[in-house]
Order: sequence, then C-alpha cells, then structure tokens
Amino acid sequence: MSDEKLTPQSENFSEWYNQIVLRADLADYAPVRGCMVVKPYGWALWENIQQALDKRFKATGHVNAAFPLFIPMSFLEKEKEHVEGFSPELAVVTVGGGETLEEPLVVRPTSETIIGYMYSKWIRSYRDLPILINQWGNVVRWEMRTRLFLRTLEFYWQEGHTAHATREEAIEETMRMLDTYYRFAIEEAAVPVIPGRKSQTEKFAGAEMSMTIEAMMRDTKALQSGTSHFLGQNFARAFDIRFLDQNNELQYAWTTSWGLSTRFIGAIIMTHGDDQGLILPPRLAPIQVVIVPIYRDDAERSLVMPVVDRLEQELREAFRVHVDRRDGVTPGFKFNDWEMRGVPLRLEVGPKDVEKNSVALARRDRPGKAGKSFVSQEGLTQTIADTLKDIHQSLLDRAIAFRDSHIHDVKDYEELKQVVEGGWAFAWWCGSAACEAKVKEDTKATTRCIPLDQPGGAGRCVVCGEPATEKVYFARAY
Amino acid sequence: MSDEKLTPQSENFSEWYNQIVLRADLADYAPVRGCMVVKPYGWALWENIQQALDKRFKATGHVNAAFPLFIPMSFLEKEKEHVEGFSPELAVVTVGGGETLEEPLVVRPTSETIIGYMYSKWIRSYRDLPILINQWGNVVRWEMRTRLFLRTLEFYWQEGHTAHATREEAIEETMRMLDTYYRFAIEEAAVPVIPGRKSQTEKFAGAEMSMTIEAMMRDTKALQSGTSHFLGQNFARAFDIRFLDQNNELQYAWTTSWGLSTRFIGAIIMTHGDDQGLILPPRLAPIQVVIVPIYRDDAERSLVMPVVDRLEQELREAFRVHVDRRDGVTPGFKFNDWEMRGVPLRLEVGPKDVEKNSVALARRDRPGKAGKSFVSQEGLTQTIADTLKDIHQSLLDRAIAFRDSHIHDVKDYEELKQVVEGGWAFAWWCGSAACEAKVKEDTKATTRCIPLDQPGGAGRCVVCGEPATEKVYFARAY
Repeated sequence: MSDEKLTPQSENFSEWYNQIVLRADLADYAPVRGCMVVKPYGWALWENIQQALDKRFKATGHVNAAFPLFIPMSFLEKEKEHVEGFSPELAVVTVGGGETLEEPLVVRPTSETIIGYMYSKWIRSYRDLPILINQWGNVVRWEMRTRLFLRTLEFYWQEGHTAHATREEAIEETMRMLDTYYRFAIEEAAVPVIPGRKSQTEKFAGAEMSMTIEAMMRDTKALQSGTSHFLGQNFARAFDIRFLDQNNELQYAWTTSWGLSTRFIGAIIMTHGDDQGLILPPRLAPIQVVIVPIYRDDAERSLVMPVVDRLEQELREAFRVHVDRRDGVTPGFKFNDWEMRGVPLRLEVGPKDVEKNSVALARRDRPGKAGKSFVSQEGLTQTIADTLKDIHQSLLDRAIAFRDSHIHDVKDYEELKQVVEGGWAFAWWCGSAACEAKVKEDTKATTRCIPLDQPGGAGRCVVCGEPATEKVYFARAY
Repeated sequence: MSDEKLTPQSENFSEWYNQIVLRADLADYAPVRGCMVVKPYGWALWENIQQALDKRFKATGHVNAAFPLFIPMSFLEKEKEHVEGFSPELAVVTVGGGETLEEPLVVRPTSETIIGYMYSKWIRSYRDLPILINQWGNVVRWEMRTRLFLRTLEFYWQEGHTAHATREEAIEETMRMLDTYYRFAIEEAAVPVIPGRKSQTEKFAGAEMSMTIEAMMRDTKALQSGTSHFLGQNFARAFDIRFLDQNNELQYAWTTSWGLSTRFIGAIIMTHGDDQGLILPPRLAPIQVVIVPIYRDDAERSLVMPVVDRLEQELREAFRVHVDRRDGVTPGFKFNDWEMRGVPLRLEVGPKDVEKNSVALARRDRPGKAGKSFVSQEGLTQTIADTLKDIHQSLLDRAIAFRDSHIHDVKDYEELKQVVEGGWAFAWWCGSAACEAKVKEDTKATTRCIPLDQPGGAGRCVVCGEPATEKVYFARAY
C-alpha cells in the first residue's frame, strides 16, 4: 500500500474508485486491454459471494454444471434479437491447432444458445422438466470503455438457465431468482437494492421480460447488480426445445436465465466505501476481524503475543481472523492499512489490555472514538458476533438513508432534469421508448427499473403527459 | 438411463468407459468438436474434488486468485521450450468487437506466461516472497483425439503458481505439492498413485524438473493424474521476475507450477469401476447414501415413507443423502440405476424393516449378498460412517492389489516388451532419450515416472545395457 492519501469521494468519485481497487489489492490491470487480474483479496471476496449465493441456489433446488466456453457462430444467429444485441461485443476464435477453422467459434458472452442446444437434446417429456441448472464461470464481452470489476472484457459470474413446462412456472422461477438476488444483496452485502422490471429498451437481448436489482452508488449513479430474465419460448423455438406433455402433445418449453457477476464487487465498494477506503460488509469480508498487537519493546511483546495467539485460536473457530504480525511498521500504519482495506472490525491488544483482561474493538463503520470500545476477553466471541451483526445493520441503514434521501418524486420534466444531476427521479411514465429516448438524450439518465413496489393508481407521463399506470426510476447509471 | 447392459470391461474397456460416462450422467458431448458438457452429477463430483484440494492448498498457505483467459501471443514466445511445446495446440482469437486484432490473443493453454508477467510487476523485494497463488479455471488445448474427461479441448483444472527467493525453497514447494496430490489421491479418491519424476522427454515444456503422480487404470494403462513442476529460473528470466535480496542485490526468482484437472475424474472411473458401472469413492461421491423405499401398495407405502423421511433428516446432517422417491419404477430398477451411478452405499427400507426397527445396507464395492447387511436404525449414523470408511479402505486395498499384481520387475528387454502388453514394467534405465524412444517405437510404452521410492544400488539399462542408477516405470498411457 502507498502512504499517499486517497482522493476524496467528493473531489473525484471515479478516481477514488480506481485508487481503492488497486490500493486495497482487490484487482490489477492485465496486460490485455480491458482485462483484469483479480488479486487474492478480491478473489476471496468473490469466493464468499459465490458461497453465499450457491447455498441459496441449492436451497431452491438448483444444481451446478459446466457448458463449453466456445459457441459456434451459427448458434448465436438463431435468435434474432440475441445476435443483434451481442454481435458487436464478440471475441472470435478463427484459428485452432494452427489451422483456420471452418466455422469460427465465439467465446461465450452468455450461454443461452449453447445451453438451449443441449436442453433440446436432454428434454423429451414433461417428466424431464423442470431443469434447474446454474453455471459458475467466465464470459467475454468486447467492451470499449472498461473499468475494473464494473465493465471488463472478461468477467466472472454465475448464469442460471432453467426450462419449464408452463409459462406460469417459468415466470415464477424468474421472480424467485430475482428475490434470491434481492435477499442476498440485503442480507449478505448490506446493499439495499431495488427490485423491478426493465423497460423493453433496457431488457436482455432475447428476453420477453427482464427483472433487475438496482443499487445506488455513493455518487448517486445506479448500478444494475443482478438480472433475472423470462425468455418466453424465444430460445425454445430457436433451439427446438420441445417436450411431450401429459396429453402426449409436443410443446415448446419456457425458459429463464439469471446472472450476477464480479460487477457486484463494484456495488459493494461504491455503496459502503468512504474517504478512508473500503468498508466491507461483515458477512462477505475476507477478513472479518483483524488483530493488531500493540507493544513498544520486547518485554511488552512477550506479554502481548501469547494473548494474541490465544485469542486468534479462539476466534478463528467462529470468524475469519487475521493477525497483523508485521514488524517494522507502527500500529498506526497498520490501523490505516486495514481501514483502507475495509476490515469491519479491528481488535487491539496492548500491555494494559493483558493486565485488565480486555481488548479494544474499533468498528470500521464508525471512525474515531465513536467506534471504539473496550471489552472483556471473557465472552469475546459473542461480543464480536453481536458487533458484526450490528455493523451489518448499520451499513444497511446508512445505505438506505443515503439512497432514500437521493430519490425524488418528480412532478414535471424540469424537476426530473434537475434531480438526475445528483439523484434518482421517480416518475410516472407512459412506457413508450420515445419518452425514454428523450430523457436519455436530454440528461443521460435511463430508466433503471419499474419497481415491484408501485404506489398504485395512475398519473401522467413525466415526459409526454399521456396517461401512465406505472412509475419508474430515471437515473444515470454505470 | 438405458436398460441396455454395459459392455463388459474385459470385452472393450474403451467402449465401457464411453458408455459409463454418458449413462451415469457425468458428461455429454458438446456441439463443438472435442468439447464436453459436464452434467450436474459429474460437476458435483468435481466440486467435491475442488473442495478437498482447496482445503489442502489453503492449509499449506496458498491463496486463490484469477488471471485472464487471454494471453498475448508474444508472451508465449518468450520462453523457447514453452512455445515449442504449446504452439501446435493453441486456440487463437483474431477478431474482437468486429475488428481484426493487431496482436492475436491465445486462449490460455496454461498460465505461466501471463502470471509470470504479473509477478514481475508485483515482486520488488525478498519481502514480497514467497508468492503462493492458485487459480481454479478453464484452459484450452487444441487436441486432435479427444475423450470425455481424459482429453478435451477445454478442460477444468487448478493451476498453482509460486515464486520463491531460493532454489531450495522452490524445490521444496514442488515436492510439497506433489505430496499434497499424492495424499489427496490416496485419502480422498482411494486412487493409489505412484509419485515420481518425469524424464526429460516427458517433462512440462519449460520446466527444469516435472514431478507426477501416475495411476494404473483397470486396463493396466497409466494415467498421469497430477503434476508439479520446478521451473527453475526459466520463466523468471523470460518475464524478468527479479527481486532485491537481503544484500540489496537483484536476483531472479525461482518459480513452480502444479496442476490437477477434470482428467482426475477419468482416473476415478477407471480405477474403481466394474461391469455394473461406476464405483465412486465415498469421500468424493456426490451421493454417499441412496435410500430406496420398498413397498408394494399404498398401505405399505404409508408405513415406510415416514421412516424414510425421518432417516433422511437424520442422515443428511452427516452425509450426502438422496432418497429415490420415483414412482413407476421397481426397486430392482432403482438398485441397478444407483449401482450403475456408483453410489457407495444403498439403504433399503421396507415394511419388515419398519417392524424390526432395522434397515438393509448394500455396499457398492461388494456385489450381491456379500455386501448386504441388516442393521439397527439405532446408531445408524455411526454404522454408516464406519461402513463408508471401510468402503474407502477396501477400494484402496483392491486398487493397490490390482496395481501391484500388474507391475513386473523386468530383467531384460524381451520381458519388458511382453509385460507392457498388459501391465507396467519396472526396470533399470540409463536415462537416455534414445532408449526411451526405442521402447516407445517398439511397444508404444513410455517412461511414466522415476519413482521417489527407489531400490537403491545400480543396474544395467534394460534397453542398452549401460550402467543405470535409477529404475523407471514403462507403460502405455492415456
């Protein structure tokens, strides 16, 4: 880490973001344009995200599998909207084993097509349904403007792909996975996302309906943090996924897909971080508790270290603990370093603590004295468990308060234009693509989602004044 | 699953293998030549392998990270042997985002080069060493003759890449990871591999020394099941990985790499399987215990199912349990199905068991009556834990017995030629590539490894008669 101060968020949020990703050792730039190296600290965060989601997927009946990285170009062309959406972003393998390939292979940007092909082989009868498969892997989209975690050529994600016998069941699955993402974001990451429906313009290429969770970053821009798509029979028709129903009639299946990626790490960074650096939500933090021993000389050291070793043994049963045993740097340097890296809770042990059978706890979410307390070594596991829970809640509350204070019900178009300069506008919208396009052109804000939670009733479109039955969020987005 | 009988191993081992991979639902052929789809049952097996290895890697101080899928072509060319070894097998991306790339990108066949590049950025001083990083991911090698799991264009693996300050430390790491693979194979998979050193001909392209674990399949062919390479300073020189040592002098680092892939699933299948199908080692099996309820009518059903439900609840705390609740197929069909899929232990509950408070246990490793016992429902968790442990041991013992009865100390070249028709030849070898080449040409057998466990002393090379100080295994291999 460098001793240089981070650029404050208020000065240049984007620069703050780039600095913190590098300095906290989450990721580095790869020598291939737009690609990233996820460093051990960043990958440990992703592994915790993976485990938390995977548990939820398995609890809802899903299993994991692995489909190929390469997709024949002809597959993508089978679904018209899909190929239109993805063809500008493809990486294409044209040479294999020294020979030019007869049919170029696309490095998967997403796997609906190749999984659709396999499902058409596997599904014969209604007894084979539903198929509930998820895949953890890497995908490639040839993006022009890239940023670590937020938009990289290659990224890591999970993509669920399910097939069902009825439209209702597939829609139910789409909503179940939206809810799974929503709960994950709130309960594990303390990121208060808003669940809703994408507009027709913003939906996934090939979907009938796309659901999303949208988060507000600390610069008030929106970040799409996970999506769940109802694909109707679009891919079933393109790949001939058909089954014999209970009346022995051949039917097209109904499919869904849903994904959450390493982009979510960006959501965590920009929801919780402050001018001191990262703040990681306790349930996902690679290190939940860092122990910093405090001593001035060898005598104090030999007093302190046995207690530190004992506490480490004790606490590692329940938490992800790290002891900072570095020599040659001051405790103050260590404090700053772990604050910058976002460890939720710091535990200090000095000679006085040894004497008093106490430790000092410092919460990352409350800087300075407000976050510091001195507690007994007795019952420390429980104290820490309670404190981490409280940190989670306080991060969530703070993010909700920030979000809600930056969302404004707007009455007219002028107000909308003002609001999206530093917040989200919540407004009636007639649903037309023309009105969306006008807002985007005038303000760079797009429709983020039509939230599940609607006020009811009706109003007038904030853009054209025509009757509207739903309200939508307009915001600038990553 | 199909009712057709499997081709017996003795009739056509290769056909037996292909059938069992498909019928047990481990994997399927992808619509891209040489690629596979790993189906949920096969992927669950891989996930268990991953967890078992990952735990061992972390216990030896390693951390995970992720490096890019794409490698600039020029990187591979920096290490002469490396590029010679891999260039015939490359998949190359030449088009991205609709444009021809200035420099083609190779889809990684292995990551020494790109990781070497990053290490040269990250390492400045001896304080930055060692770096102990592992990566779980996919790689691509453009193979001509492919087989599911054993050799596929894309495969899944882990690759560890470490950098050290001294030669000794890097060699120590190479041997530590060889030992990690060895213990994993024995303790988790019951695959009695032989650890040893690869010949100069057979070593990894770019390594100074390659270590391997070699397993004997039931057709007596060898399967290289995991490798650990001491790379010397080859990659450090190619990528300028240098550090300031304690005397403030610039030194090249010493690096290692080590990998184990989905190929290991092939090793499990071909070490333990029989004419009834798969036999999965209990510690890795996706389903450790399958419960088959036995009833003839609704009255018996309502007697049996509550007990089955209760046992499921009880056992799932300790084991990976599956209850076969399928209606419309007989218990006999279910028995065959789960035997074919290799579940180590079957638990049957019928009306008489309910009456007697017992269950029937059937061991997959001992077919028919020999493997069947009737045990009390009291203390069932312990009984099953003991039985699974015993199954592991019996699989291992059987595999060792098979292996050892098919390894022959050979006295002369004629005997070697005979032995490798149906086993491995253990022989003195002078170490020359010419002798290796002659054996390969005459018999298709290659040197598999110079085992760590040597008889000592000296002998005469089995091929040329020159003095030899080490014995080697010659065998045909996958």
